[in-house]
Amino acid sequence: MLIVITYDVSTKDSASRKRLRKVSKLCQDYGIRVQNSVFECFVDSTQLKQLEFKLINLINDETDILRIYRIGDKHKNKVKHIGAKETFDLEDSLFI
Amino acid sequence: MLIVITYDVSTKDSASRKRLRKVSKLCQDYGIRVQNSVFECFVDSTQLKQLEFKLINLINDETDILRIYRIGDKHKNKVKHIGAKETFDLEDSLFI
Repeated sequence: MLIVITYDVSTKDSASRKRLRKVSKLCQDYGIRVQNSVFECFVDSTQLKQLEFKLINLINDETDILRIYRIGDKHKNKVKHIGAKETFDLEDSLFI
Repeated sequence: MLIVITYDVSTKDSASRKRLRKVSKLCQDYGIRVQNSVFECFVDSTQLKQLEFKLINLINDETDILRIYRIGDKHKNKVKHIGAKETFDLEDSLFI
């Protein structure tokens, strides 16, 4: 299924910036960055649980915000891109 | 239906920053900001077309990126919040 991860991670100090890099790296392990802090990932339910568990243990739940949207398997007409830079076809680029 | 709008609008000059404010204001007219450049909106298909039309005419399609995700009507188990600040119930707060 396609999921979308969006996050706002604090950048007020070096520990926060380190956390931000880790969240970004973790999301990249599962999918593709489509915007600054927006990732699209193709995962099965086991991978989703795994990813959620890792993210929950990574972020600071007092300062960081993360939202995961389950778009589902039938995603082609559920995602609309407007504007610059759609140079990739998500499914072609994902090798999980 | 619930939709999620994510955007990266260039901020390199005053015209871009003005555009960013307009995109943000337009999204606020239809829904709620849940993160820096992420909005959740409850719209019907007519409102969705209207919003897309306005956004397409607002952004600079060489520098700005916008993605609209259609989550659908049954959204309760499709959105997971992790971390700080979920002080609102989206449907309670929306008066469109």
